[in-house]
Amino acid sequence: MAHSDLPAFFTPRNIALVGASDRSAWSQMVAACFDLFGHTGKLYAVNRGGKEAHGFPGYTSCTEIEDKVDAAFVYVPAAAVVEALQDCAAAGIRNAVILSSGFAEAGVDGAAMQEEVARTARELGIRFLGPNSMGFANLAHGSVMTSIKSRRPVRKGRLAIVSQSGALVNEMGKVAHINGIGIAFMGATGNEAGLSITDLLEYLVEDDQVGAICIYSEGIRDHARFMAAAARARELKKPVVLLKLGRSEVSGAIAQAHTGSLIGDDGVFDAMCLKTGVIRCSSLEEVVATANLLGITGPIDPPRIALCSISGGACALLADLSHEYGLDVVPYAPETQEALAKVLPSFASTLNPLDTTGVLVQQPELWLEVIPILARDTQTGLVIVAQPLPNVETELATLTSTIEAITAGFHAADHPAIIVDFCMQTRSAEQLALLERLGVELPMPGLLITVRALANLQNWSKALARPMTQRALPPPSGERPVGERETLAFLERHGVPVIPARLVTSAHEAFEAAKAMGGPVACKIASPQIAHKTEAGGVKLGVDPADAGAAYETIVTSVRALAPSALIDGVLVAPMRSGGTELIVGVSNDPEWGLAITVGAGGVLTEVLGDSQTRLLPIDEHEAREMVLSLKSAKLLQGFRGAPPADMQALARAIVAIGDAAAALGPDLAALEVNPLRVAGGEIEALDALAIWSGS
Amino acid sequence: MAHSDLPAFFTPRNIALVGASDRSAWSQMVAACFDLFGHTGKLYAVNRGGKEAHGFPGYTSCTEIEDKVDAAFVYVPAAAVVEALQDCAAAGIRNAVILSSGFAEAGVDGAAMQEEVARTARELGIRFLGPNSMGFANLAHGSVMTSIKSRRPVRKGRLAIVSQSGALVNEMGKVAHINGIGIAFMGATGNEAGLSITDLLEYLVEDDQVGAICIYSEGIRDHARFMAAAARARELKKPVVLLKLGRSEVSGAIAQAHTGSLIGDDGVFDAMCLKTGVIRCSSLEEVVATANLLGITGPIDPPRIALCSISGGACALLADLSHEYGLDVVPYAPETQEALAKVLPSFASTLNPLDTTGVLVQQPELWLEVIPILARDTQTGLVIVAQPLPNVETELATLTSTIEAITAGFHAADHPAIIVDFCMQTRSAEQLALLERLGVELPMPGLLITVRALANLQNWSKALARPMTQRALPPPSGERPVGERETLAFLERHGVPVIPARLVTSAHEAFEAAKAMGGPVACKIASPQIAHKTEAGGVKLGVDPADAGAAYETIVTSVRALAPSALIDGVLVAPMRSGGTELIVGVSNDPEWGLAITVGAGGVLTEVLGDSQTRLLPIDEHEAREMVLSLKSAKLLQGFRGAPPADMQALARAIVAIGDAAAALGPDLAALEVNPLRVAGGEIEALDALAIWSGS
Repeated sequence: MAHSDLPAFFTPRNIALVGASDRSAWSQMVAACFDLFGHTGKLYAVNRGGKEAHGFPGYTSCTEIEDKVDAAFVYVPAAAVVEALQDCAAAGIRNAVILSSGFAEAGVDGAAMQEEVARTARELGIRFLGPNSMGFANLAHGSVMTSIKSRRPVRKGRLAIVSQSGALVNEMGKVAHINGIGIAFMGATGNEAGLSITDLLEYLVEDDQVGAICIYSEGIRDHARFMAAAARARELKKPVVLLKLGRSEVSGAIAQAHTGSLIGDDGVFDAMCLKTGVIRCSSLEEVVATANLLGITGPIDPPRIALCSISGGACALLADLSHEYGLDVVPYAPETQEALAKVLPSFASTLNPLDTTGVLVQQPELWLEVIPILARDTQTGLVIVAQPLPNVETELATLTSTIEAITAGFHAADHPAIIVDFCMQTRSAEQLALLERLGVELPMPGLLITVRALANLQNWSKALARPMTQRALPPPSGERPVGERETLAFLERHGVPVIPARLVTSAHEAFEAAKAMGGPVACKIASPQIAHKTEAGGVKLGVDPADAGAAYETIVTSVRALAPSALIDGVLVAPMRSGGTELIVGVSNDPEWGLAITVGAGGVLTEVLGDSQTRLLPIDEHEAREMVLSLKSAKLLQGFRGAPPADMQALARAIVAIGDAAAALGPDLAALEVNPLRVAGGEIEALDALAIWSGS
Repeated sequence: MAHSDLPAFFTPRNIALVGASDRSAWSQMVAACFDLFGHTGKLYAVNRGGKEAHGFPGYTSCTEIEDKVDAAFVYVPAAAVVEALQDCAAAGIRNAVILSSGFAEAGVDGAAMQEEVARTARELGIRFLGPNSMGFANLAHGSVMTSIKSRRPVRKGRLAIVSQSGALVNEMGKVAHINGIGIAFMGATGNEAGLSITDLLEYLVEDDQVGAICIYSEGIRDHARFMAAAARARELKKPVVLLKLGRSEVSGAIAQAHTGSLIGDDGVFDAMCLKTGVIRCSSLEEVVATANLLGITGPIDPPRIALCSISGGACALLADLSHEYGLDVVPYAPETQEALAKVLPSFASTLNPLDTTGVLVQQPELWLEVIPILARDTQTGLVIVAQPLPNVETELATLTSTIEAITAGFHAADHPAIIVDFCMQTRSAEQLALLERLGVELPMPGLLITVRALANLQNWSKALARPMTQRALPPPSGERPVGERETLAFLERHGVPVIPARLVTSAHEAFEAAKAMGGPVACKIASPQIAHKTEAGGVKLGVDPADAGAAYETIVTSVRALAPSALIDGVLVAPMRSGGTELIVGVSNDPEWGLAITVGAGGVLTEVLGDSQTRLLPIDEHEAREMVLSLKSAKLLQGFRGAPPADMQALARAIVAIGDAAAALGPDLAALEVNPLRVAGGEIEALDALAIWSGS
């Protein structure tokens, strides 16, 4: 859909309910949603009998409705949907939400009907959401076409929740409700034969009423548009937080059976998230809490948290959870520690997390000093106080003064008041009233989810602090190198440092080449037909120059014997390298997200331990360096056991050049692999490489 | 405390409240707890004025009380505690809970007072809990001496909750309350100058009213007794679930500042948990949910879960969470899949987690077939249905029939009915009533915590399925080998396969030894004074037998020059080894938990990637094999890239022998390290080893 049409689609006023009937419990439930979520326009019941339903006037056809109708809300049986769309079109209605189920989610016959619905809509120029969709509730704009269940009171706010799954949009809404978080928009896309999650994202990113977006998805469609929308959200500093399946193989199989989604390469998806600043979560609580938190704080600088509590136990728990979930907990700046030491009792520590000790129970006014000190700390960018929040009457009686004191501390520091409860629980109306009165933000349910959300805030803030790489990738060169020799030569022409190998075609040339190299050499068969050189007897390592001629003969004889039909270009002679660290650098052409570059620790580390990092191209040298430093085995490159530390700048440059070279290989490239890229201090060289072409 | 005294301590009937006063809000709050938790004995107020308080008769001294008093509940100011204890003793009271604060948690002066209290109690023969303790509420036995806060109604049940921290015992109780879980016992030990967590554990393990125990601890005291109590719980299949700090360095520092606890070696603590079947958690929700679940199910066989839901989204989410948290999700047995295929619609899959599809919303009676099929599955030992539980009125109206159908399915299968909600929320009274009516167990709040608790159930069931190793370790031999040669010889005598090295004392002997070995050799200086042999020029590798004499001279000359005062025993000549995989096997003598053995991947893998496994001794060959197979790099030993797979039995035997040898080295051993233990197929040899002695 053209971007400019989306606001009209999601803000209908006058809506025809096609299939409305007082006798149907389903229709009653759907009709109740208009009130529940606060629809502000007119509603019309369309059914065979033309009967009034749920108090809305009745019509036998949309064409009979006297007012201009903005959208049709279709929940007739599956077999009647096509006819309903034809009626809509006849009435000039171009927007529809199709709740009806029994389509692709219900087997082969349903899938055929779904195709017919999509074809009909396309022919009639109707935009639609569904089928098997729960529609949307646009609370921010008073437009409701949904069967999403929600609890009363539905609080209006700035969070948008969208989902492919109907069950999970209900549950994410429930998590928001339990935590008292206000909603701007809820929507479920269902089978996505029409609009997809990407369309909803495009709309929500541009809507000023929406402060944060959380999404449940089994598989993203419209990849380039999704990335563009996510990048736009990044630009606007509007958080996009995803619960996307596909970490495990079985979830992919379930998603495929469930909604026909193909989940794609999970590592590449993570790389897309990293690039666009999309945050990925793994639980319902985390996705809602994270979106809400990021919407409250925006990106923080520095991207680290000042944690504190009157409970030493909670502080230690926060520290361990931070360790588990990758939240950096750094010591406070020396000035902060000095200032804290002056305010707190002598037996208190000044660690982060800060255990203020029970003294602050007796002297809550100390919060007015402690919080401003933490807010001024130069090492952290956000203050969080962990404190049980009063929820029932007895707690309100005993804890309210503490919450007031903490809030006053935040206000004195001109800092958003963020207090986190120790455990997850449904916030009572009394608690919500107290927090509203004091201006306390509604952040996160419990220490566990808090730490996960804070780690997400940290990563999002870091991602947004760096401009998105705008480097242009080189255009396709039209070249198509085959085999090691051609590929290495191509890489060398594109700025990748490559081992100086010579192609020789006789024993004498081999000897001369080796002699010129002045030390032991590696001799390898050069033939585009031979991929497994060692198995074909095509490799001799550590050859003394004096023996290079003999090695040439041995190699050629062996290969000729084992692969008589192979074309032999000659033998590559290259200086032997030893020591240093080996990396693998690969570029793959992902069918969904495009070129992705992976840097892995060499040898057994990538294969056995999966120690690798993936990013979408283009990357710049800063990102290349970050990839290397993010390897678990990064230490090996930083002067491990007395080895010279790698020249990180040169290494980053080489990695960027490999990515550029892959782009220059053009759209037919399936994968480019440099294995190994040898790193020994400042000596960085591709020792071997191979390009693999799609269809080959 | 002698074990047999504990039940008396924790089940007092008649209690003197020392410090009770109607004017004190604190005293009022404490007094309210008797009703809240259901105390069944008599209460007496003791204060300076001898005044009645909270409706209890008043006395100026415990000695005045006419009845036999079982315990004193002391909450006078810190400075008056010693005197109060003297009064108790005079009245023949030998059990006390000291709530008073202002002791070790409040600095140096408080610590001195605490020591005086402990000394006084010892002298008077008084057992006590505290100071700065919130006491205990023994709901199962109607004995209450506590200031723990709780919400009404406090549900009686089979869960015990104990904590060092007062704030966290409150919060764990809150988590139980929110989830409707019934409590048998709550207690907080505070400063632990008297009874410790270990004492509470000993009591609770033996109490039949307690079905599961969850513990928050900053550091365990009484290590041997703790292990014995945990082992006893294992024997009784009573789960002990711990939230223990110390995963991160900073939590250790906080705990030390907070309660003076030293957290010790976290890896060794994990090894203790593995050995005794104690389960370790990282959040308040997880620890409570895990204890409750394990108490409901007991260990399951096979230790794997059958997961299902009508929501494909929830199934996929469960799969990804399982992947993240190490819950094994295995395919159903072929018979199960066939049976499911007959019952479910053709478009449904038969994967685990099982997406039953929305068909079960329309036909809830299918649960009566699906659940028994899953309950009969031979690959899994427990069925879990993920299903939103109705919590508010509208949900109760729409969802009750579904819950009834699921419950009927469980009953038809003669399986405990375990339904898990998608997200965490406070269970409403209406939901609890429904679940009670249907006999549904109260398991876990939300999919996230469910998966963590199920992973814990899996690990606990596996641990309990294997008998605890009963092998006796050898007694100390009295020997004290120093240096590589003596240590290797000692290991060899204790059954560890060791490289056949020869000690030579002349160039000629070196040559003869090398010649007899028939290939290149390694020559290493043998001197108890030289730890860093390479740096001293004391190592030559890959020496041709013809050059062994010269190597001998070079080594001795170099070492004499660099370390003129070192005693030189000679030179060790050993065959050169190449290829294979290197492991590190170390045994350390932990001051808390005793001898612990660590197996690590050799080379850079242990040092850079921390790939190691630790267990407490004794271990048997089964455990040794499990340690090796649990290494992330275990693949390297299983026929990686065409290498011969390791002889696992021989390797396990060698590891067990190293542990035994360490025990034979006696109590002065600080650490024994075999590095490397070379593994090449069936060739397993210690190439180097060193014993380190405490104090040296």
